[in-house]
Amino acid sequence: MIVPLQAKSVIPISKSDSTPLSRQIYTGLRTAILNGVYRAGERLPSTRTLADQLSVSRTIVVIAFEQLLAEGFVKGQGGSGTFVSEHLGEVRTMHKRKPARLRLSRFGQSAMEVSDNVHYPPLPQQRLRYDFAYSRSNTDAFPFETWRRILIRKLREAPVRELDYGASAGSSSLRVAIVDHLRRSRGVACDASQVIIVNGSQQALDLTTRVLLNPGDRVVIENPHYQGTREIFAVAGATIYPVGVDSDGLMTSALPKRARLAVVTPSHQFPTGAILPLSRRLALLDWAKRADAVIVEDDYDGEFRYEGQPVEPLQSLDTEERVVYVGTFSRTVFPSLRLGYLIAPKSLVSAFVAAKWLCDRHSATLEQETLAEFIRSGAYERHLRRARRMLAERRAELLSCLKENLGNTMEISGENAGLHLVIWPKARVSEKGVITKAAAHDVRIYGVSQYFKGKALRPGFLLGYARLTRREIREGIKRLGEIECFKDTRQ
Amino acid sequence: MIVPLQAKSVIPISKSDSTPLSRQIYTGLRTAILNGVYRAGERLPSTRTLADQLSVSRTIVVIAFEQLLAEGFVKGQGGSGTFVSEHLGEVRTMHKRKPARLRLSRFGQSAMEVSDNVHYPPLPQQRLRYDFAYSRSNTDAFPFETWRRILIRKLREAPVRELDYGASAGSSSLRVAIVDHLRRSRGVACDASQVIIVNGSQQALDLTTRVLLNPGDRVVIENPHYQGTREIFAVAGATIYPVGVDSDGLMTSALPKRARLAVVTPSHQFPTGAILPLSRRLALLDWAKRADAVIVEDDYDGEFRYEGQPVEPLQSLDTEERVVYVGTFSRTVFPSLRLGYLIAPKSLVSAFVAAKWLCDRHSATLEQETLAEFIRSGAYERHLRRARRMLAERRAELLSCLKENLGNTMEISGENAGLHLVIWPKARVSEKGVITKAAAHDVRIYGVSQYFKGKALRPGFLLGYARLTRREIREGIKRLGEIECFKDTRQ
Repeated sequence: MIVPLQAKSVIPISKSDSTPLSRQIYTGLRTAILNGVYRAGERLPSTRTLADQLSVSRTIVVIAFEQLLAEGFVKGQGGSGTFVSEHLGEVRTMHKRKPARLRLSRFGQSAMEVSDNVHYPPLPQQRLRYDFAYSRSNTDAFPFETWRRILIRKLREAPVRELDYGASAGSSSLRVAIVDHLRRSRGVACDASQVIIVNGSQQALDLTTRVLLNPGDRVVIENPHYQGTREIFAVAGATIYPVGVDSDGLMTSALPKRARLAVVTPSHQFPTGAILPLSRRLALLDWAKRADAVIVEDDYDGEFRYEGQPVEPLQSLDTEERVVYVGTFSRTVFPSLRLGYLIAPKSLVSAFVAAKWLCDRHSATLEQETLAEFIRSGAYERHLRRARRMLAERRAELLSCLKENLGNTMEISGENAGLHLVIWPKARVSEKGVITKAAAHDVRIYGVSQYFKGKALRPGFLLGYARLTRREIREGIKRLGEIECFKDTRQ
Repeated sequence: MIVPLQAKSVIPISKSDSTPLSRQIYTGLRTAILNGVYRAGERLPSTRTLADQLSVSRTIVVIAFEQLLAEGFVKGQGGSGTFVSEHLGEVRTMHKRKPARLRLSRFGQSAMEVSDNVHYPPLPQQRLRYDFAYSRSNTDAFPFETWRRILIRKLREAPVRELDYGASAGSSSLRVAIVDHLRRSRGVACDASQVIIVNGSQQALDLTTRVLLNPGDRVVIENPHYQGTREIFAVAGATIYPVGVDSDGLMTSALPKRARLAVVTPSHQFPTGAILPLSRRLALLDWAKRADAVIVEDDYDGEFRYEGQPVEPLQSLDTEERVVYVGTFSRTVFPSLRLGYLIAPKSLVSAFVAAKWLCDRHSATLEQETLAEFIRSGAYERHLRRARRMLAERRAELLSCLKENLGNTMEISGENAGLHLVIWPKARVSEKGVITKAAAHDVRIYGVSQYFKGKALRPGFLLGYARLTRREIREGIKRLGEIECFKDTRQ
């Protein structure tokens, strides 16, 4: 059946569009074919007719036809014209169908549930003047000029091999720099071959689920805990076993008889800030032996400790090679760098490297080389010393302001390390209520209850101090002291 | 029981070491305690005795003791000295035990098997002068100065928020730039909300396994195929169903009745280079509907096509939203950048974004912003045009040299797109044998049989031409023609 063009809808073209006209015509005809405007076996209008109707040169239409021919949408039949291919018969009906409902995997389904609770991209929040945000590094202390200089040098120097695929475990220069730094700063004793560079500590946790966890395996987590930790293990199919936390951190006496993994934050428990004492560290390692468990030590802000030297990590107390040590540069350099590392027991190194290879080959090379030089040159340790000094001042200011303004209306935990502390009001309050009242005073504080699995033991508030000046801290806490539950009645 | 220091091993210290002496002494004493040299309840030598014996100031020893006290290894008892803590009783025996044998997950075990076959870090190979490497972009065409200029500008401009965590789906500037580019260059029609930025196409495949695959699910792959594709799906627990490939690519007539996923490379089948014709594309989409399968379209080198305009991707022919389109910048920018993307059907976007959030939060921001500007400014498309021109010249040279030197001793496939082609000798040869002979002529070529699951249909060799000059191509192929099986007997 031959239908003249006039009977069909005109192809929409726009001469001001940046898409070439031939492409617009091609797309229009293709859509018309797929929509069944032209059916299988049907003849298309001639190039001349079409060119006339669209007021374009015939060459342009010919190019569009050639593309349709090349792709098999149409075929030419000698002098008799151009016809829609026969095998397109079923396409038309297909084209009008609605999107298919696709089944998700169990992981995918769980991930969707998580995604309801998780802010991605971060929800735009009203900006408050005194924001005690806690998962933030103090970018004002970071030597950006030094960082830029090194990055630009690395960029200029980069030989072709640094543009090609790199080693899955990471750049050897960075792995060596990390080992040297950790030995000096944290007493972690390991070989560069045990270091695997990852895209932040979240990937270290994810790789751990891949390498060690079968669905249904029991995973001990601290309660409260960082929700990102629980989420990745839960979504990967773990049976989560929460163990309570007191002022000394994880209550090792409450550990279960058996577990596959325990994920802990001994240097500064998240969120309470408790520092796990040696006796519990040893008890935990001893438990791991009896339970045949692997311990994941998330040392997320272990570089910042204000009294005494840093506590020895589990990794260096471990004599059975049961500890996977996880570190990140998100709090010491900046988060968008997306670099962290894990130190695997020797027996797990190959499996972790293979998992990294399978997941994404390796982390970006330029960032790795820049960070390696930043550490090797001493700039990283100078920065840490400076950041520690600044943080110590801010922490001192915060503690003194809390004492002065909130007095004995609350207790404090977690002040001896990290970038935040927690205040626990003595009065019975609603977390939400206090947060709302604080916001009315232009102050943002963060509730701890979101970090509990199950009901929180008591209301509490995280106060980060890395991004506020001493003056801002002073004013923020003064305002906080005006909220009913924090009014010091002794005075 | 009190044992004087003299009876115990002396603590090893080195005054030339960069570790502070107090730290060395602390570590030495701690090791002695953990090794049981000092037992629970035992008294340590006095700080004075130790200072004398080690020839250091007493203050240094006192600092070490204070650290041991702070960490609970020892306790002071008024004036009577410093004693090893009682709760260390069990530590000694623990310390001498051998590393534990740790169990891997099923994923971990499979990953280990893969890791035997995979080169990480890449095995150092003897450098050959004429290396027809194929998974390489042509870095000599890349405008590094432009790239550097943009990167440095982005580095200087970066506001604090770009140092903080970014959106899991990726920077919106990059997502928009990719959509615009793909619409112009590949006819892919999608919304920026469907684009998810990943660390190279391997992560796109990994996220696909997470979001869509349950263990035991059937996954169709082309045979032969890129082994990285098979590996991640197999290790994730898929039942791999290989479907053969002929000169038109995937043989859609051999597709199974049911499958969860099909992973295909329609624009330039890897490794054969076949371009899937429209009729098979439609048949594949139709099959997906009947089988209720999702199609993963890996468009790894779809930007490079030498005859006609690029073929329409499955993504734009898909009317049921069953196609996950995967793209990478490894071949158009450079691999160590670690950036790629996937375009998800709308119904899967949330699950993919949540999976990315769980796996590693997001990809590095600076690289994303740089790439966005590189694309937006037009530099990317100028680079692609230049690269296509250069590649077209090299390809023409290669084809003419093959004809001239190898004549009708072989067949060629895959020459119409991408960065490599395949030659298939007509004589019965051993792949290994030919590769070894070529190496003796300083020429490196690559066998196809490694990409087959099961036995290869016939021997063949991949020849990449992105990194060789026309002169090198000419000389390399001339030398190849000197190998017995390629000697053109017509002449």
